[in-house]
Amino acid sequence: MKALVTGFEPFAEHPHNPSQAVLALLPERVGGLELVRATLPVDTERVRPILKGLYREHQPAVALHLGLAAGRPLVCLERLAVNLLEFDLPDNGGHLLQGTPVLPEGPLALLTRLPLRAIQARWKEAGIPSTVSNSAGLYLCNQVMYLALAWLPPGVPAGFIHLPPDETLALARPQAYVPLKTQAQAVVLALEEVQKSIPPGP
Amino acid sequence: MKALVTGFEPFAEHPHNPSQAVLALLPERVGGLELVRATLPVDTERVRPILKGLYREHQPAVALHLGLAAGRPLVCLERLAVNLLEFDLPDNGGHLLQGTPVLPEGPLALLTRLPLRAIQARWKEAGIPSTVSNSAGLYLCNQVMYLALAWLPPGVPAGFIHLPPDETLALARPQAYVPLKTQAQAVVLALEEVQKSIPPGP
Amino acid sequence: MKALVTGFEPFAEHPHNPSQAVLALLPERVGGLELVRATLPVDTERVRPILKGLYREHQPAVALHLGLAAGRPLVCLERLAVNLLEFDLPDNGGHLLQGTPVLPEGPLALLTRLPLRAIQARWKEAGIPSTVSNSAGLYLCNQVMYLALAWLPPGVPAGFIHLPPDETLALARPQAYVPLKTQAQAVVLALEEVQKSIPPGP
Amino acid sequence: MKALVTGFEPFAEHPHNPSQAVLALLPERVGGLELVRATLPVDTERVRPILKGLYREHQPAVALHLGLAAGRPLVCLERLAVNLLEFDLPDNGGHLLQGTPVLPEGPLALLTRLPLRAIQARWKEAGIPSTVSNSAGLYLCNQVMYLALAWLPPGVPAGFIHLPPDETLALARPQAYVPLKTQAQAVVLALEEVQKSIPPGP
Repeated sequence: MKALVTGFEPFAEHPHNPSQAVLALLPERVGGLELVRATLPVDTERVRPILKGLYREHQPAVALHLGLAAGRPLVCLERLAVNLLEFDLPDNGGHLLQGTPVLPEGPLALLTRLPLRAIQARWKEAGIPSTVSNSAGLYLCNQVMYLALAWLPPGVPAGFIHLPPDETLALARPQAYVPLKTQAQAVVLALEEVQKSIPPGP
Repeated sequence: MKALVTGFEPFAEHPHNPSQAVLALLPERVGGLELVRATLPVDTERVRPILKGLYREHQPAVALHLGLAAGRPLVCLERLAVNLLEFDLPDNGGHLLQGTPVLPEGPLALLTRLPLRAIQARWKEAGIPSTVSNSAGLYLCNQVMYLALAWLPPGVPAGFIHLPPDETLALARPQAYVPLKTQAQAVVLALEEVQKSIPPGP
Repeated sequence: MKALVTGFEPFAEHPHNPSQAVLALLPERVGGLELVRATLPVDTERVRPILKGLYREHQPAVALHLGLAAGRPLVCLERLAVNLLEFDLPDNGGHLLQGTPVLPEGPLALLTRLPLRAIQARWKEAGIPSTVSNSAGLYLCNQVMYLALAWLPPGVPAGFIHLPPDETLALARPQAYVPLKTQAQAVVLALEEVQKSIPPGP
Repeated sequence: MKALVTGFEPFAEHPHNPSQAVLALLPERVGGLELVRATLPVDTERVRPILKGLYREHQPAVALHLGLAAGRPLVCLERLAVNLLEFDLPDNGGHLLQGTPVLPEGPLALLTRLPLRAIQARWKEAGIPSTVSNSAGLYLCNQVMYLALAWLPPGVPAGFIHLPPDETLALARPQAYVPLKTQAQAVVLALEEVQKSIPPGP
């Protein structure tokens, strides 16, 4: 069973992206899950076929997508994705979308398929504070979360975790951060809880 | 040679004080310095004789005072102490001072005797983001910093570090935090840099 | 044609609610709209029949619901409501809901029926900075917004505006605020823009 | 009797400076004070002779210096100035000072000569929330405040008020703001209170 874990490349004024950097700190396997890591482009056009290709190639049993939330101080579970793209700043490909749906025929919103409370409880046990967010924004993070929930079969746990700045970003500009090592630990614990939530196969 | 390191007890709406909790994570010695740890009361009257007693008893070669800055996300070196007590909320003894000098005959401000830049550079090497603050407030933290700089001989390095919330506080109420273990590491590294700055004895 | 404008009573640690106070500063009419003002209880059970009663009695052509967003510094248009109640703190009736739908048979999310861009442009002309939010939370504000969009006929413009603290709150505890008079002006301008968006009757 | 009121030109990433813009909204006279308005350069070298020249030419009975504090949401009275220049970013003249005193022979800190409590009380009466700050930073604002307190005769009330972003800045980038008109009102009320505090002449 494969777990696809993705981060994003740097974008906007952020010279570094913890969601990419954290991938290198993850182990090869978490319990029975073999990890497949990928860095996604912050390009609303290019990310689409790349994500579809990753799902086709790996047929993941779990999809955990990660991204940077520059203004949030804690690891943050996203509750839902919205069928709307509305950018405050152009993506790395120069696209500046306003009022564009992610999938024209899709529902307005889709609910995470990660076990939010179990993950939060596990993090708490490990001394990792977190929040649950009701908005993943309307940028690339929300797009990837929406596509994951729309494209992957309903039985596949999928969702999005926003990561806070790490020490690399906070050393460059003073701001709240969580050490990258703690962020990696949070991802591993989340994967363990997700695995527990997978219904047994036939 | 003794290094006195103090924290404060919990106060106001904070059920836990990282500056107290961090003391238990410090080693017995840092380089040639023997650590003497003490938790100070958040009581503007009581803290005075207790601090004087600690200085008399231990004749410290270094005094590093620690306190919680609840709204600041990073470890924070204080640059100066002001000869004024002005409380927004009563201390644990119920005192609510307004416009009271720390020492009636003292100068308006006193400069830290910690090597701020050396400590920040050392922290940066270790991946610990920090800030330098130009105000330690006008509450107990500033009082202790002022008293340290006024009472200890000029050759004794002395100063104040504000610590951010730790995971215990951020688990109780979501907010920016730095893991207590990282805070302890920052204190140890600061002591190492302070020791380098001590002029050799006769 | 009637426009129903509602605010909320004070709740939690807020001794005053700008969304209630602003009602008294609104004129009797805005263009062709006769204003009906009501203060709603912060009680998830009681608010339901009261809202239903207001809609039945007044058959409003416009429903503009207002609430306080204590941590947001600007007037804020909400984009969508979610079919979920999840309270961090009990409401004024002591209810503490977790994972409860607003309407068991309803869709996961409903889109505002206010002309967001026209309102923001109008505010900008008047020198009133604002934001558009993608989450009205999962408390009473979101509940009322969801009920409005679910219960009112599709042709009735309806939506939610979060108001920032006003001077009364910021005088009691220093925080970002917008003068209540400016908030009232924003509500009037929003109603003017909503009225322009109403399709002509038969 | 003349009151000198100064603001600063735009600097760093701020295309507009409320402390400059507010000058145009002030009346010619406040009570018995004739207002002299000046915009100062954000240049640590050039500001010095310009300020000295203004003091010489106008022999002001009151000096009220204003500046922008981009991250603070309220009008803010400064309590003290520090004899130190330490820049995080170059000034408009390209100077980047570290550890330079404002006046080599001056004391470490100087206390404001504005009646802080009377001004805050007056603002409160007028519905204008405010804070008192214990640090004016170590940039141009602090330099001008220090020079005012060092150069003007002790009997001349002098001090510094930090202004928050106004609507022009908050329309360009969403952030907490206070309407410029309210900021102008605050300056006028402060001048009225300062005037009351001037000791009668011989």
